Parts: sequence; structure tokens; C-alpha cells
Amino acid sequence: RDTITQEDQSDVTPSLIFSSVTVSLLAASMMEASLSSLCTPAMLVDVDKVKRNAQRMIERCRDLGVQLRPHMKTHKTLECADILTSGSRRCVVVSTLAEASFYADHGFDDILYAYSLPFDKVERCAALSERLDLFQVLLDHPHALDQLKKRPLKDGRLWHVWLKLDCGNGRAGVLHSEPEALRLALAIGGAAGVELTGVYAHCGNTYNCRGVEQIQAVAKETTDLTLQFMKKLKAAGITCKSSIGSTPSCSHPVKDMAQLSEVHPGNYGFYDVQQSVIGSCSLEDVAVRVLTRVIGHCPHRNQLLIDCGWTGLSLDGAGKLPTGYAVVEGHPDLKLLSMTQEHGRLEPISGPLDYSKYPLGSLLQLIPYHSCATAAMHPVYFVHSEGRLLGKWTPTRGW
Amino acid sequence: RDTITQEDQSDVTPSLIFSSVTVSLLAASMMEASLSSLCTPAMLVDVDKVKRNAQRMIERCRDLGVQLRPHMKTHKTLECADILTSGSRRCVVVSTLAEASFYADHGFDDILYAYSLPFDKVERCAALSERLDLFQVLLDHPHALDQLKKRPLKDGRLWHVWLKLDCGNGRAGVLHSEPEALRLALAIGGAAGVELTGVYAHCGNTYNCRGVEQIQAVAKETTDLTLQFMKKLKAAGITCKSSIGSTPSCSHPVKDMAQLSEVHPGNYGFYDVQQSVIGSCSLEDVAVRVLTRVIGHCPHRNQLLIDCGWTGLSLDGAGKLPTGYAVVEGHPDLKLLSMTQEHGRLEPISGPLDYSKYPLGSLLQLIPYHSCATAAMHPVYFVHSEGRLLGKWTPTRGW
Repeated sequence: RDTITQEDQSDVTPSLIFSSVTVSLLAASMMEASLSSLCTPAMLVDVDKVKRNAQRMIERCRDLGVQLRPHMKTHKTLECADILTSGSRRCVVVSTLAEASFYADHGFDDILYAYSLPFDKVERCAALSERLDLFQVLLDHPHALDQLKKRPLKDGRLWHVWLKLDCGNGRAGVLHSEPEALRLALAIGGAAGVELTGVYAHCGNTYNCRGVEQIQAVAKETTDLTLQFMKKLKAAGITCKSSIGSTPSCSHPVKDMAQLSEVHPGNYGFYDVQQSVIGSCSLEDVAVRVLTRVIGHCPHRNQLLIDCGWTGLSLDGAGKLPTGYAVVEGHPDLKLLSMTQEHGRLEPISGPLDYSKYPLGSLLQLIPYHSCATAAMHPVYFVHSEGRLLGKWTPTRGW
Repeated sequence: RDTITQEDQSDVTPSLIFSSVTVSLLAASMMEASLSSLCTPAMLVDVDKVKRNAQRMIERCRDLGVQLRPHMKTHKTLECADILTSGSRRCVVVSTLAEASFYADHGFDDILYAYSLPFDKVERCAALSERLDLFQVLLDHPHALDQLKKRPLKDGRLWHVWLKLDCGNGRAGVLHSEPEALRLALAIGGAAGVELTGVYAHCGNTYNCRGVEQIQAVAKETTDLTLQFMKKLKAAGITCKSSIGSTPSCSHPVKDMAQLSEVHPGNYGFYDVQQSVIGSCSLEDVAVRVLTRVIGHCPHRNQLLIDCGWTGLSLDGAGKLPTGYAVVEGHPDLKLLSMTQEHGRLEPISGPLDYSKYPLGSLLQLIPYHSCATAAMHPVYFVHSEGRLLGKWTPTRGW
């Protein structure tokens, strides 16, 4: 056999992919392996683009003089985390406790679980706080603080707590304009066994922006409101860290962000079509694809069928793009009209379909609208450099 | 500790859940375990409802005199498959080759891989055909038949091939009205090393129906067209099986379906809100829920936040229900307005939210719009009987 199958690749140890020795070993065993040898649908990661996106964010934060705390929620893998943290395995943020445990189990530390403290997971948070050098939680309600006070940590350890502030995003967080915000910060700072580590704002409202100017307006507003809150805290005698984030704002930071302690973008390792529409990146920066095959010709409907349904792409992006649920690389004239569980329907944006260009079994690559959602559908990602398969990354899942 | 956590439950061997010995052991160790001990979001399966739904379908098919071949695509677990096949582990249909391999590895046989033969998976299909007593594939194009002819099976085994017919569903399959359909059937029947096992039609167009009358009209049309095609085959000297399916049509079969060899519904083990809207079942028949907790109060927006985002529910059902992406059990006045990765926003359909009814940390149960899509988001399902946890089922994933 001169090609590798998905089963063959299960021997590749993901965590070794970036050791140069292993790359050589892989090169020997996979010399002939190319993307076309993969069973589809398959999630592809262009490791060169991930490294470039990571490096740019590192440089951007270094130039700004702000600490980068990359978010793991998009990729949820060790290998991508190594790239985003330059191998330090320190200073990350996660969206689930499953991610926190996964990273802690693999030598990561200084982990911020940036999710309004869930009352069912206090004991698991306590265990991580007692085990790691620095495990940090987040809250936005006095009842959550009560939960922490009811479970003091062993050996005199402190709960490291970030206050979640809503600076206009409209999801979690105590409203920056409410007196309750300052009261809660003071209560955290004053509670025994608890430390107010920082103030955290997610500017997810940058996702409604189009273009750098709008992104930077939201970034500036979130930064200003956060810094104003920090001043109020300081006036009350409290000093702590501050952090804002979102991939759009951190891809185009405003200079005031230099006054923050940290930023916490996450999607930028992969990027996606949504980010290119917002203006965070160009379409060329998007590091992920779903590889799919043509499995049906339907000339009576002027359609093609592909073997990628919503189990391979997710339903995110419905109604957002002229090309449907994704962009078909190299075929801007095709629209991913609809998906069922394991089928996608492609049709031309206009005119008749030229079936000779898409023989049964031929490959297409879908650029996902939302890479977080697409990645969540795949038990494994296939990693390549210029089309040469290097191995696979296995994300964690669940909660 | 008097409660179990998600970690504790990982010791429970899923395949043993339905042995009475194990149920006793579990009962001993989980005596105090109830749904409220689960970390959320969590996928719940009411095993009594699954058994009742399964039994009804078994009886319906027995009364009709037609072989039931349950589809595994919704649940993808061994335990649910055992219930749907009455423990025979025979005569099932799958949507991915990963499912086929999973079931084959666990003693299932007579497996139909009902997906237009993907050219990248012919070798894996051959391996299953050579290993199982009866592994069956499906195709709808002469090029796919060529792929099989290029890979004759060992030991004189035959490829068991179903012809996929499109009887108005408008997805995969050769159009019933096209002369090509009969030509392809004859080509399959006449090819060396290949056997025409049956004719397969999926009446997914029942999903556009509302009420039994409309469902039965589509069921009758699909049955009639399939049986007309069988007559043409018979006139050409070919006899083989016939099968139609979809949960709506098999939940309300028409008497002509008795002339078919098989039916292949899948969703009915779980059912969901969509099926209740179509008219396949009542909302009380739906066996699955997503258990979620209140994690935020947002009185300035008249909203609640819950810890179930699209990673816990999927985005299926957007714009379909007055209650948003799901139905909140026992709270018909609530609407699941939107979700991000790990957050859901609930608001009242009208009027102000009474926050005293939804304290932080309190539990809600979401009835999914589409259980296939919701199940696909969960690495494990928690199984209960009348709220008492029995253990967990682990689905297979991937392709």
C-alpha cells in the first residue's frame, strides 16, 4: 500500500508531532501521504498558517506590551496550545472544566476557567486550585462568591477570582455601569480565602462589526470601560489585573489596550470565514478546512452531493454568506445550499453546473464559517504542511 | 460523599447496563444518585421511554408483517441498539462506516451501510464484507458499481448491494422515473461477484409534513413508487428486497407498506420536538433531554443565562419553534432565544421574567428540536429510569 488510511494514522502520537525527531520518523512513514489519501469528511489544519497566526498575535501583544493569554476553546488540543503558548504551557484560558482538566493533566498551569462559576463544579474547581500552581476562576454574582467561601481551599491556598464585567457584549458579567459591579469586586477582595485576581471583559460584540474601524471602536469602548472600572477599584484601594478579549479586537488592537494587563483571544489560531467577513483576517489566513468528496450528481436539480453534512461542518453560519454554509475553496461560484446529517447539497450560484469539473469521488475543501463550531464536530484533526500530512491532533470534549 | 460526579460514573460499563445483575450493582452504588447530581450540560435518556418507543415500533412492524431494520444514526450506542433489535444484534442500518465498524466490533451482523458508496471507503467496505456474515452496501451510480467490480471479494463472497432510489425525497438516489434506474438495477444484478440485494428509498420528505394524513400520503407515494419499480424489476426477471423508511412514515405506516420487505426508521427510539411537530409522536414520547443549569440573571435584558450553548444542543431548529431552539420542559412560557458556544439565553415569550422561579444553580431540562443533532454533540449520555440514574451510554463518532 502506498497510501495511509485513517486507521493507520491512529498510531501517530499527537503530542510528538512537533519534535523534530518525530517529524523525521513521520516523514519516513508518511512520505507518500497526502490529503487525497484521507477518508472524508476530514478536518484539516494547515500547521504553517497556525504558526503564522500565532506568531503575529505574539508579536502584536509584545509590541503592545500586554500579556497574551490565548483561549483554548476553538481547538482544544495540546499541540495547538503549544504553538499558541510558544511551548511554555502557561497562561491559558479555557471555556469548560473538561478543557481545564485536560490541560492540567498534560502539564499546563496558570489556567483561567473563564466561565461564570457553575455551582455544580465548585468541588472540581477546588481540586484544580489545590493541585496547580495557579488555577483561576471567574464569577459575576455574590451567590457564586458564597459558594467559594463555603469551600475554603486546603493549605491556606486562595481562590484566585476574576470578576466578569459586561462592557456592552450582553451575555455574562455584571454590568459595568451598575453599582453592584464595584460592590462585588470589593466583596471578593474582602473575603477570607479569596483573592481578586483581575477584571475580565469579553468584547464578543466585535462579532457584529464590519471592518477595522468598527472593530477598533468596540475594542476602545471595552478597554475604556474596563480601565474606568479599574480606576474606581484603585480609588477603593484595590489593585488587580485587567483583561479583555475577542479575536477581532486583538487582531486589530487599539493603543489604549497597552494599559491592560492581559488580552485573551482564541479563534485566531485557526480563524475562519466569519473572521474574514468581520475583518479580523484575510481569507488566506484561515488555517482550517473540511475535506469532502463528491458522492452524487443530481442534474435534474442542478446540484452536487458531498459527503459533508452537519456532522462534519456544523449548522453555524446559516443565511450569512452568499455561498451558503461555507466557502468552497477555489470554487467561488458554488453554494453549500443545505446539509442533512451526512450529506451536503452544492449548487452553482447561477447558471448550470458543469459536472465534468466534479467527478464522483473528487475532492473539495470547505472553508468553515465558524471554526469553533466545525472543530467541535471532529474527533480528530488532520495536520498538514503544504498538503503533506504530518499527523493528527485530538481535541478534548465535554464538560 | 452521597452524590456521584461525572468522573465517578466513568466506571460504569455501558454494555452491562441492561443485565439485571449489573442493574442491582448499580442500584447499590448509585442508590442516592439522581439527575441533580450530574454536572451540566448533560444529555439524559429516559430508558423507559426508549423501550416503549422501541416496543411500539416492533409491534407495528410485526402487525404489518414487515421486517424492521432500525437505523443507528441517532443514538450510535450499543445499548440503544440492543433495545431496538430486542437484543438480537442483527438487522441494522448505519449512516457512517465508523458506525458499521463499531457495531461489527461488538458482535452485530446483518449491517446495511445505507450511504451512496464512497469511493474512498471501498477497501474498508470490502474488509467488513469479508469478515461479517452479511455486510451490505448501497449505491446509486454506475461508477460506484465499477468500484465494486474492481475489488472482488475473497473466497467467492458477493458484494451485497442495495440500489438507492429517489422517490421524491430529493437527496441521494437514482430518480425512480429515470430509465437509468432500471438499467443500473440490471447492471448490479448482472455483474460478476455482485448481488442485487434490494431497493432502498428514504422518504425524508415526510419531514415537511404536518399531521398523520400528510405523513401517510408521502408514505403511500414512496411505497407505491418503490413497488412499481419492483414490478419492473420482476418483469425483467429480477427479484430482490425492498425497503423504505423515515420515522414519520414508520410511526404511521400505510397498509401497502406490508408489501415491502423491510422498513428502516431511526429517530423513533429517542424522538424529539421536530417529530412531535410533524405528528410522528406526542411530546410525551420524547425520551431525551439536555439537563442544564441557570448560571446568570440578566434583569436589564429580561433574560436568564443557562450553561447549555450549541456545544450541548446543536443549532438545529433555528427559527422553527415559538419557544426558540428547544422546548423547556414545564416552562412553556420560556424561549431559548440564542446560544453561543457554552451559553444559552432564555427569555419569557411575553412579560417580565420571574427570577425567583429560577435561582442560580437551579436545573432546567431542554427537549431538543432534533435529537440526532443534539446526541451528536455529547460524548456520553446519562441514562435514567424515573429520574434514577442507571449509568451511561457512549456513542461512536466520526466516519
